[in-house]
Amino acid sequence: MTDRIQEFLRNRREAGRDTGPCVVVDLEVIRDNYTTFAKAMPDTRVFYAVKANPAPAVLDLLARLGSCFDTASVVEIQQVLATGASPDRISFGNTIKKERDIKRAYELGIRLFAVDSDVEVEKVARAAPGSKVFCRILCDGDGAEWPLSRKFGCAPEMAPRVLELAHRLGLNAYGLSFHVGSQQGNPRMWDGALKSSSAIFKDLAERGIQLQMVNLGGGFPTKYLKNVPAVKAYGEAIFRSLKKHFGNRLPETIIEPGRGMVGNAGIIEAEVVLISKKSDEDKMRWVYLDIGKFNGLAETMDEMIRYPIRTAFDGDAKEPCIIAGPTCDSVDVLYEKAPYDLPISLEIGTKVLIEGTGAYTTTYSACEFNGFPPLETHVI
Amino acid sequence: MTDRIQEFLRNRREAGRDTGPCVVVDLEVIRDNYTTFAKAMPDTRVFYAVKANPAPAVLDLLARLGSCFDTASVVEIQQVLATGASPDRISFGNTIKKERDIKRAYELGIRLFAVDSDVEVEKVARAAPGSKVFCRILCDGDGAEWPLSRKFGCAPEMAPRVLELAHRLGLNAYGLSFHVGSQQGNPRMWDGALKSSSAIFKDLAERGIQLQMVNLGGGFPTKYLKNVPAVKAYGEAIFRSLKKHFGNRLPETIIEPGRGMVGNAGIIEAEVVLISKKSDEDKMRWVYLDIGKFNGLAETMDEMIRYPIRTAFDGDAKEPCIIAGPTCDSVDVLYEKAPYDLPISLEIGTKVLIEGTGAYTTTYSACEFNGFPPLETHVI
Repeated sequence: MTDRIQEFLRNRREAGRDTGPCVVVDLEVIRDNYTTFAKAMPDTRVFYAVKANPAPAVLDLLARLGSCFDTASVVEIQQVLATGASPDRISFGNTIKKERDIKRAYELGIRLFAVDSDVEVEKVARAAPGSKVFCRILCDGDGAEWPLSRKFGCAPEMAPRVLELAHRLGLNAYGLSFHVGSQQGNPRMWDGALKSSSAIFKDLAERGIQLQMVNLGGGFPTKYLKNVPAVKAYGEAIFRSLKKHFGNRLPETIIEPGRGMVGNAGIIEAEVVLISKKSDEDKMRWVYLDIGKFNGLAETMDEMIRYPIRTAFDGDAKEPCIIAGPTCDSVDVLYEKAPYDLPISLEIGTKVLIEGTGAYTTTYSACEFNGFPPLETHVI
Repeated sequence: MTDRIQEFLRNRREAGRDTGPCVVVDLEVIRDNYTTFAKAMPDTRVFYAVKANPAPAVLDLLARLGSCFDTASVVEIQQVLATGASPDRISFGNTIKKERDIKRAYELGIRLFAVDSDVEVEKVARAAPGSKVFCRILCDGDGAEWPLSRKFGCAPEMAPRVLELAHRLGLNAYGLSFHVGSQQGNPRMWDGALKSSSAIFKDLAERGIQLQMVNLGGGFPTKYLKNVPAVKAYGEAIFRSLKKHFGNRLPETIIEPGRGMVGNAGIIEAEVVLISKKSDEDKMRWVYLDIGKFNGLAETMDEMIRYPIRTAFDGDAKEPCIIAGPTCDSVDVLYEKAPYDLPISLEIGTKVLIEGTGAYTTTYSACEFNGFPPLETHVI
């Protein structure tokens, strides 16, 4: 919680505008985070993962600070270009693209594309001739709070063929990317993928193709309930692995922080709508908030992200409770398998603060599920 | 698939407007469904669950047909009132309501509210004095494809106290409600809850309170891949249980179909964006569509709803594949644990039709996740 957010929320309450939940994002925190990444990894370019929070003010700030941008769609590309950033600072990082979207991106000046299959290379070769491509490889997500599925990336053994095809089709076979899993708590987890990357660099060099870049992806954690290692520790561990596997011929590197850049910059203020029990014998209270899975807290899916929740009663004795959202949807339950300790004195109508909600909250909001509006957003 | 939807999609393609996925909802199917419910349960009032699909044209049609409406929020109440339906045809069926929203609903003329706890009764008594309330009781969701959590409802043993409190606070203790689970395949599953209901009616009658109504909830299935019993079978089984437990003093009854009213009225047309394998040895293809969990198919969560998918290659040999959405989100995978048989000849760029998508598709759509727009909707 920053003083600026606290003041903003106080003013909002005093003006009587606190009728629904909102997230407040403090740009000063994002500025600090950017500086921390830049310092911890001075030779690495930062490509902010726009999907984490595409608010115009967030993109404007990062553009001014010199960040590059990882985008998932033509709309995100346009959002970044709207900041005035030049297209050479943008990567079209989605491995699943319609050919007409690749063409549109190319027309907008984009020359850097992610691929993970032969057919995607063929699309890029036709729609964005001569562009740089990097091939995403699968890597194991051990140590991540949210290990990724196998949706993106190909087996490392397949990557040389994909990149060789790119080269043959007139593209610039530029490098590799991987993702060690979201909210990765172990800075050493980049090592395995860097080892694979180095082997692919060598394999392609033998075929006369010089890769230049390793995209280290995201995975940099934000602090929720548990402490996480500092960005510096990630920078050091990654640099050690780069030296170990690439020796003195270090590749260009880029990172794609999303959660790590904006997660801790946001606070949601929500309201307790109902506190009840299911029966008189029930030990467990149900605490219903005016925010849930469909208007901001989608990342509580499978109870993966456990947000810190602050209340005005935090000194008081606590008891575990089930926390749920406000909709008529039975799956709109936030924490049940692992109940959440909240003060016994918590009352209906009081506000709670949900920390670490600057990333992946506004964007997951449904437009109007059950008639509830998407999450009100303030960037200050 | 109806002729009208087929023609609409053909015109859309010919006009070159088929650049993204869309859902097309055929009002004629909804009209048939309404008539079927009305015929199968002639003494039961239909309260359409607005959350399933709140498109204005859907609400207009149902209002004209004489339907009542189950709403989850003040916005949904306003959407129904916009059709010209009078407020006595609307139930505020959410058990989790802010007191100021109850007040707002009361000001709009709403006099029927769901409760499942003492404190919610107290809110309604203060904000909507004299209104009718029904108490939701928990019931077991056996037989449902999507059994509900314990989020809504109290233990049946607690209901008499909740309703007695309502009575004492000047409310009309009107009845009970329950929900047998979404996509309930067994028409006999209403029996247990009706037995509990009858006991609560008797208990309260002994305390001098005459309940009048049983809200039988939703749960009426729509056809996805498997056949489901006809609405008639539900009507008959429920009537038998009502007779069995209430004898000749049958209560008023209402039903709240959502999925059962609009599910089979909608078809999504989507496009194959990429077909690839993760390695050369991989047996399984990945088929990526331009629709996924965040722009319409949220109900594939945990692979619960398995939609029928039609392609132009349906006569050809099929092989199982993993189906995923277009976003840069690793959880945006539709069917993986139980792979889906699709034609081997399926090609990138071709269209697929996803059936049974009239309910719970538009409303779950995120506003702009990854820059992808919410599901384009056409009601014809």
